[in-house]
Amino acid sequence: MKELGKFQYYLPVNLIFGRGRLSEAGSIVSSYGKKVLLVTGQGSARRTGLLDRMKGLLEEAGTECVIFDQVMQNPLTATAEAGAALALSRGCQVVVGLGGGSIMDCAKAIAFLAVNKGDINDYIFNRIAGKTALPLVLIPTTCGTGSEGNSFAVLTNPENGDKKSLRSNAVIAKASIIDSELMETMPQSVLASVGFDALCHSMEAFLSKAAQPLTDGMCMDAIGRIGRHLPVLYRGEGGPEDWDAVAWASTLGGMAINTAGVALPHGMEHPASGLRNIIHGKGLAALTPVITEASIEAAPEKYRQISRLLGGRDETDCADVIRRLLEELDLSAGLKSLGIQEEDIPWMTKNCFKVSAASIANHPKTFGEEEIEKIYRRAM
Amino acid sequence: MKELGKFQYYLPVNLIFGRGRLSEAGSIVSSYGKKVLLVTGQGSARRTGLLDRMKGLLEEAGTECVIFDQVMQNPLTATAEAGAALALSRGCQVVVGLGGGSIMDCAKAIAFLAVNKGDINDYIFNRIAGKTALPLVLIPTTCGTGSEGNSFAVLTNPENGDKKSLRSNAVIAKASIIDSELMETMPQSVLASVGFDALCHSMEAFLSKAAQPLTDGMCMDAIGRIGRHLPVLYRGEGGPEDWDAVAWASTLGGMAINTAGVALPHGMEHPASGLRNIIHGKGLAALTPVITEASIEAAPEKYRQISRLLGGRDETDCADVIRRLLEELDLSAGLKSLGIQEEDIPWMTKNCFKVSAASIANHPKTFGEEEIEKIYRRAM
Repeated sequence: MKELGKFQYYLPVNLIFGRGRLSEAGSIVSSYGKKVLLVTGQGSARRTGLLDRMKGLLEEAGTECVIFDQVMQNPLTATAEAGAALALSRGCQVVVGLGGGSIMDCAKAIAFLAVNKGDINDYIFNRIAGKTALPLVLIPTTCGTGSEGNSFAVLTNPENGDKKSLRSNAVIAKASIIDSELMETMPQSVLASVGFDALCHSMEAFLSKAAQPLTDGMCMDAIGRIGRHLPVLYRGEGGPEDWDAVAWASTLGGMAINTAGVALPHGMEHPASGLRNIIHGKGLAALTPVITEASIEAAPEKYRQISRLLGGRDETDCADVIRRLLEELDLSAGLKSLGIQEEDIPWMTKNCFKVSAASIANHPKTFGEEEIEKIYRRAM
Repeated sequence: MKELGKFQYYLPVNLIFGRGRLSEAGSIVSSYGKKVLLVTGQGSARRTGLLDRMKGLLEEAGTECVIFDQVMQNPLTATAEAGAALALSRGCQVVVGLGGGSIMDCAKAIAFLAVNKGDINDYIFNRIAGKTALPLVLIPTTCGTGSEGNSFAVLTNPENGDKKSLRSNAVIAKASIIDSELMETMPQSVLASVGFDALCHSMEAFLSKAAQPLTDGMCMDAIGRIGRHLPVLYRGEGGPEDWDAVAWASTLGGMAINTAGVALPHGMEHPASGLRNIIHGKGLAALTPVITEASIEAAPEKYRQISRLLGGRDETDCADVIRRLLEELDLSAGLKSLGIQEEDIPWMTKNCFKVSAASIANHPKTFGEEEIEKIYRRAM
């Protein structure tokens, strides 16, 4: 055993967890401003009536509500710029993100760009830093991203396909409302892929070279909860306790990666979904077992713990345990079936080193370009 | 199993952990202001040269340093008022607490009173609320209180012996530097009593009715670390890894009680040390085994986990396991030997319901006045 080493932990988000707590959104949001930009997408929130309910809650609390509903999957920097322009032109004082990871990330970027001038890519690539943003309230309707618990906003540059996180403490939500009742309308396929994304956050933060005791505790808790509860939910046999467990695990994963970072699976997935707009959780499902097999020797103790938390034996069956879970979730598909082509591999490999240098550095095993390319091929 | 229920988690402290990191104090403190009130006591920091070192670090970083060294064990509200008057008269912009729990708590109260006018007892008893304080940097030199990780400042009113926490998010440290090298000069008896205090924080937060998944994880981690490492340190056989483990467990305990609160042992100890100025950890040592025996039936599963984390079997030997640890730490003494007299018991019982209503409410078993009085008698 050795000393705990050096670490730092800072995460000033106010987490408000519990079924039915969306009802508190009006008073929470209005404490930050009376003119609200409500960011959402074209899909489920409108269809399920959630958007109307949210608007009602905000108006009852005496706020005026401007809606920006242009966010798509894998949100573009250009969309965030459009949202920020709307927020500015309408004098919005607070930004609410209501939806899944794409929507919350775009809401973060909008709140950031409403205050910080210039090209968002300069902030994403750390050429300049922003210190403030409009106050943000995030309300997840999926249990995957964990964006409600961290300082990241993943955006894709439409000009070159770069998919990379804006990272700034300014976009940590003032408050996040995690109400698992809002997640029950997800289609099963969405549940599977976002739930696997959440699992990857906790596995990668646990394996990361930047892991620390507090994040390890969060990750182990989250991995166990997802292993026990996500398959039950996917089979349609879940109850409130299962929704709460996966919702909380998802937030924990988001919090853990804020401090410990992600590792190679996320690092290699971003080039794939940046290039071909594939579903993030599916890209992770194609890559994670292959990366696991190639990495176990570098961190056998941690892979052993992951395996056991997911019902396996030790590090030797860790990849198999993950594959079995992916089968249960109908997520066993290679990159090819998701739309990636052989000739994309060299670009993805190069792009991985461009946009994911930090994730590569966090990974317990160091891979060069040639090995990354091989992993992409094996994951096809 | 049931859903996770409702909970809230918010703790915006920037924790900077690691041996040798005191060296970063100058740049950290000076980022909050150039005129510093450095709060400390009459004892160890001066004797060991730490105060001079700290002054040097602050001056090298270009700050001007005003020293307030009047803090005693179980700090008084009057001392905090004197410190705040000094901070105001000298125009201090930031407050640094360098020392154990008494010093950090007094530094918090000074930072608070420098901004909030009126009688501090009105804030302590929640008759009025304060929203801001001078920015605070806390540097613990003991591993017990966990004050560096929470929003509490325990103070004693010299007029009536009331010992009660000021609780305000305003006194959460902007940054806390946890450098276990600073703790190595503690006398063994101080180490034992502060270390046991830290254990009590985690046991009580774990048992608390306000416990939640995140605090449970922190508490279990901390209880295990203290059980494994504190006796080694106390025997004088410890190394850096043991100091780090107990230092981190102490911070975790402070963080956990910020959200989950303390329970009956702290609730019953405050009247004792408020009245007779006894050492907090020794008061807890006298009370905790007796309270444990009386409470196990109300939370057998949690007492079982505590027992196991401390090397015991199940809930039935939990009190014995704690007693054994106290023997190893030479802390097995009743309240009488600490200076409490039979005739103090009625006052302590009444005072417990006055100053510790929240801790009583958190405790897994509900006790009336008669039972509290009996517990005090058994702990004599």
